[in-house]
Amino acid sequence: MITCNAVINYCSACGSPVTHRIPEGDSLARAVCDTCGTIHYVNPKIVVGCLPVFGDRILMCKRAIEPRYGLWTLPAGFMEINESAAEGAAREALEEANANVEIEDLYTVYSIPHISQVYMMFRARLLDPDVSPGVESLEVKLVTEEEIPWDQLAFAMVKRTLNHFLEDRRTGIFVPRFGDIHPPQR
Amino acid sequence: MITCNAVINYCSACGSPVTHRIPEGDSLARAVCDTCGTIHYVNPKIVVGCLPVFGDRILMCKRAIEPRYGLWTLPAGFMEINESAAEGAAREALEEANANVEIEDLYTVYSIPHISQVYMMFRARLLDPDVSPGVESLEVKLVTEEEIPWDQLAFAMVKRTLNHFLEDRRTGIFVPRFGDIHPPQR
Repeated sequence: MITCNAVINYCSACGSPVTHRIPEGDSLARAVCDTCGTIHYVNPKIVVGCLPVFGDRILMCKRAIEPRYGLWTLPAGFMEINESAAEGAAREALEEANANVEIEDLYTVYSIPHISQVYMMFRARLLDPDVSPGVESLEVKLVTEEEIPWDQLAFAMVKRTLNHFLEDRRTGIFVPRFGDIHPPQR
Repeated sequence: MITCNAVINYCSACGSPVTHRIPEGDSLARAVCDTCGTIHYVNPKIVVGCLPVFGDRILMCKRAIEPRYGLWTLPAGFMEINESAAEGAAREALEEANANVEIEDLYTVYSIPHISQVYMMFRARLLDPDVSPGVESLEVKLVTEEEIPWDQLAFAMVKRTLNHFLEDRRTGIFVPRFGDIHPPQR
């Protein structure tokens, strides 16, 4: 799934050129259409996903798309309209790994301000170990803790979510985590 | 803050009329521009807010805007680009009630599929009881449990969040909740 952050030059409702200015009563500049009056708000996007578990193994997917082609991730993707976060997380597991999951608790929530995304990752029970790559995956597999490809993970949120899960699994008490992810210092 | 769900008739990048169809490799219909190639995704919006506490009292705001003009809410509004969920929650408290808060844990997360919104509500510490209505509030006040206007609450998420908070406050253990909110049966 690809995001779109195209610059707004024209009104998507009426096709007229827009002006970028702060609307009355607002505090941020928006794309405003002076022809039809529409204000075009741009807001962060939600990425929903899950950590599907089968016995002592975790389902992971090798990405067949950019960004991070060829690196490993947990099934996740942009939440669609008219679905719940949990429904979206289950849908992504099905799309990326042909995996049937039962979504459990919301587990990690990360804001990533520099790309205007919020990740919402659920714990999930994989109902059937018969999984296979969807069109966005090169390969899917069920890994034990020792088999996690730590040096080939696609995203910081994957590393953090896996680490929290493995830590909590030792105690049997799964504590939701939330936080922010910022770009690495260079 | 007003949301915008205008129908997409024109490409916001180049101004050409768009076609609504399923792009290659996708599974849902999108507004696609055949002139410049832009795909216009529409995704759920995030509403961030908080439950600011000062001693045994909770900060509530009487809405000066639609929807639910004149009803009571917790400070909350649409998350903006390039901010974290916690930053957005603090910003909304400042905008709606001139309230300085310290954001604590993420406390309730509700998907509302029929309006494509996800609410993320944090517990917060109100740092100074000197609050006053912002432009989107008619009135703000610090209420005890007995003073909560239960029959004049603006949104289901406010009622649920308050109920969970009051329940957890009795034990001193605050447990994050997540779930879905569907339209009331009529």
